[in-house]
Amino acid sequence: MMQEKNKARTSNLCVDGQALWTDLMDTARFGKTPKGGIRRLTLTQEDKQVRDWFMQTCESLGCTVSYDSMGNLFARRPGQDNTLPPITMGSHLDTQPTGGKFDGILGVLGGLSVLRALHKSGYITRHPIELINWTNEEGSRFSPPMMCSGVFAGVFTEEDVLEKRDRAGIRFGDELDTIGYRGAEPCGQHPLTAYFELHIEQGPILEAEDKTIGIVTGIQGARWYEVTVRGKDAHAGSTPMPLRHDALLASAKMIEAVSLVAKEHSPSAVGTVGLLENRPNSSNVVPGEVFFTIDIRDPDDAVVLKMEQDLMQRLQQIAENGGVTIEVVQIWDAPAVHFDQQCVNMVEEAAAEGNYPARRIVSGPGHDAGYVARVAPTAMIFVPCKDGLSHNEEESITKAHAEAGANVLLEAVLKADQFFNLSE
Amino acid sequence: MMQEKNKARTSNLCVDGQALWTDLMDTARFGKTPKGGIRRLTLTQEDKQVRDWFMQTCESLGCTVSYDSMGNLFARRPGQDNTLPPITMGSHLDTQPTGGKFDGILGVLGGLSVLRALHKSGYITRHPIELINWTNEEGSRFSPPMMCSGVFAGVFTEEDVLEKRDRAGIRFGDELDTIGYRGAEPCGQHPLTAYFELHIEQGPILEAEDKTIGIVTGIQGARWYEVTVRGKDAHAGSTPMPLRHDALLASAKMIEAVSLVAKEHSPSAVGTVGLLENRPNSSNVVPGEVFFTIDIRDPDDAVVLKMEQDLMQRLQQIAENGGVTIEVVQIWDAPAVHFDQQCVNMVEEAAAEGNYPARRIVSGPGHDAGYVARVAPTAMIFVPCKDGLSHNEEESITKAHAEAGANVLLEAVLKADQFFNLSE
Repeated sequence: MMQEKNKARTSNLCVDGQALWTDLMDTARFGKTPKGGIRRLTLTQEDKQVRDWFMQTCESLGCTVSYDSMGNLFARRPGQDNTLPPITMGSHLDTQPTGGKFDGILGVLGGLSVLRALHKSGYITRHPIELINWTNEEGSRFSPPMMCSGVFAGVFTEEDVLEKRDRAGIRFGDELDTIGYRGAEPCGQHPLTAYFELHIEQGPILEAEDKTIGIVTGIQGARWYEVTVRGKDAHAGSTPMPLRHDALLASAKMIEAVSLVAKEHSPSAVGTVGLLENRPNSSNVVPGEVFFTIDIRDPDDAVVLKMEQDLMQRLQQIAENGGVTIEVVQIWDAPAVHFDQQCVNMVEEAAAEGNYPARRIVSGPGHDAGYVARVAPTAMIFVPCKDGLSHNEEESITKAHAEAGANVLLEAVLKADQFFNLSE
Repeated sequence: MMQEKNKARTSNLCVDGQALWTDLMDTARFGKTPKGGIRRLTLTQEDKQVRDWFMQTCESLGCTVSYDSMGNLFARRPGQDNTLPPITMGSHLDTQPTGGKFDGILGVLGGLSVLRALHKSGYITRHPIELINWTNEEGSRFSPPMMCSGVFAGVFTEEDVLEKRDRAGIRFGDELDTIGYRGAEPCGQHPLTAYFELHIEQGPILEAEDKTIGIVTGIQGARWYEVTVRGKDAHAGSTPMPLRHDALLASAKMIEAVSLVAKEHSPSAVGTVGLLENRPNSSNVVPGEVFFTIDIRDPDDAVVLKMEQDLMQRLQQIAENGGVTIEVVQIWDAPAVHFDQQCVNMVEEAAAEGNYPARRIVSGPGHDAGYVARVAPTAMIFVPCKDGLSHNEEESITKAHAEAGANVLLEAVLKADQFFNLSE
C-alpha cells in the first residue's frame, strides 16, 4: 500500500481542532506566567498538575495510564491484538523557565486529539495505541535534556539520572517520588511498534515557504566546541597595529570562518558562534583573551566531520597570522539521526492526503524522537511557529496548523497500524 | 644655540641614578599591594602620605612647596631672576587601582632628581625651577582623567571639579579638604615659562627598537564610539544561514574593518575594539544584539576624521549586507596635541648629547602635558617599559632607563633655562 502513493485517506477520521485548541489553552494554566508563557519545570508541582490532568483526561477517553520508573507516562487505548507492541505518539509536558504554550505539549495534546477521534468514532485499531509523555525533555532543571527518553533508549542509566541534582541541590529521584510518578515498570522495558512525534518547528523554514507540514526525515548531527584565543593585553593608544596580539580581532576572523564553512555546505549546514566573552573588556585595552563557543550542524555526519576538519585548519591559520594561540575543546558530539523511511513516508502520504502544503525537513533541535529512534521505527511531524520563535513566552502557532498537524499524526498512526506486524 | 646642533652638553651635571631608584622603591610603600604594585587613588590617605613625603623631601633640597586650589603641588627652587615664570617639570603621584611603580611618579621623582643635582652642585639657573604634582591624573576615582591639569589649562572649571563624586558618593572638594591640600592660589593663575614631563612609554615601540629615549612630539588625536548592532535572536540549530540576522557575525566584520582602516593609515594610526557585549550570549542562539566600542587614533586630526568617514561608510555597508541595523554614538573627541617645537628640539638635543639611542614618538595615551601644552611651551620624554605594560602591578622599567630619562630631563630644563626670556 505504501508504494501506491494513492491519495485515498486511510480513514475518514478527523481530529476535533477546536477541542485540541481548547486543551492547549486550558493546560496553559499549569505554570502560567504573567507574560502569557509557561514555566512548568520538570517534576515540580506544576508538572504534577498537568500530569494529573493528563491521566484523568486520557482515562475519560477509555485509556489506562501507567508510568515507568522514570515517570514516563503511557496512556494506552486497546486494539484488536493487544499482544502487539503499541503504535505510539508523544512528546513532553515540561517547559523552559520562560517557555511558550506549544513546545512539547502540542505533541501530547495532538496525540490526545487522535485518541479522542478514535474514541468518539469507536474505531478499533489492530495495535494498541499509546500516547507518551516523556519526563524532562527540556533539561533546564536537571541536565541533560531528553533525559528520560534517553534512559528509555539506553543512552543514560536510570541510576545516574536518579542522582542528578538541580541548582538548589534537590535530587531528581526525590522529586519524582514527591510528585508521585515513579512507576514499577523498569524504564525501557516497554517495546514500541512505532513512534510519531508532532512538534513545532522552532525554526523559520515552514513559515518562510508557507508550508503547513514539515515531514521530518531526521535530526541534524551537531558538534559543539569551546574555543579560547590568547593574545596579549595592550594599550589601545600606544600599541602600533603590527605589534599587537589582538585576541578579539583574531576571534572576529574565526567567527567569519565558522559562517563561511557552513555556507560552503549550503543549504543544509549551519554554523554559529552564540556565546563570546572578551577579556579584559575595556574600551582602551587591546583584548588579550577571548572565549567563545562554536556550534556546527548538518544532517550528514560526514559533512559535520568535513566542516570540523576545514574549520580547525582555518582557525589555526588565523591564529598564526594574528600572533595569538588557540585552544579548542570539543564538548558535544551528537551524531545525526535518520528516521525510519517507512514512518517518514507515512507522514508524507498523510500530509498529501490531507492536501496540506508540505516539505521534507531536518530538525535542527534535538527531540525525544531522536532517542526513541534508536529502539523503534520513528518519524516526526512539524508545524510552523510564528517567526521561528520558541523557548520564549511569545511562542505562537495558529489553530489551523495545530489541527493540521494532529490530523497528519492521526493518519500516520493509522497507516502504521495497518503496515506493521502483518502476518505474511 | 639651539640651531647649532652641537653635541656639547649644556652642563656637566648628572642626576644620581641610585638616589632616583631608591626614591622610586621607597615611595612604593605608599599604597603598596601584595603583588608588588601600588593602589594610590587620588585624595586618599595614601595620596596624602606621598604628598607629605614629597613636600618634606623637596624642602630638604632647598625648595619651597605651595599648592593651588586644586591641590596641584609646586616645589620651587629659586633662580637668578625670580620675576621670570618658572621652567617646570612634573607628572602625577596618583595611580590606577592596580597600578605599577612607575606610571606618573617617574616624572615627579625624575624631576626631584634634577632638583637634587642642582642642589648638590649649587648650580644657579636663570629662571626659578619648579616641580609639579598634578592632582588626579588617572581619573579612576573621580572622572575624567587629567582633571587638575585640565582646570589649570582652563579645560574644566574648578566649580565643576569640586562637585565630582566617586562611586561611594564622596565629593572631590571634601576629600581635598580632608587631606589638607586645598591651597589659596586659584588654579591656573601660575604662569609657566616651559613644562617638561618624563613618563614611561606605556607602549612597546622603544623596547622593540631598542631605544632609551622617546622624544615625544605630541599626543595622538582620538575619537571613541559606542556601537549597537541589532539583528534577531534565532535558534542555532533550526535557522538556515540565509535567514539569519546575526549581530555577532556582522560585528565580527566590523571589528575587522576597524583594524583595516587603521592599517590603511599605517604606521601612525591605530584602531581598537576593546569592549564587546554579546546578547543573549547563549551557545545555541544566533546573537540578536551586540554592543561594542571603537577607539581610533592618529597624530593628525585630518587622518582621524578620514578614518571616521571611511569607517562609518564601511560599518553601514556591513550592516546592510548582514541584515542588521547599526547605531553609532561618538562619545569622545580629543584633538591631537602638538608639542612646542623648541621644547621638542631641546629634548632631542639632550638625548643626543647624552648619547642615548632615541627616536621621535607620538604618545598614544593622554598626559597632563597635553593640557599644559595649551598654556605653556611643553614637551615630553619617554623611557621604555617592559613589554609595553602599564596600568598593571607588573609594570617594570630598568634603573638605567630611569636614570637616562632623568638626565635628559635635566639637560632639557637647563637648555630651556638658557633659551627662554632672553632680553634681546
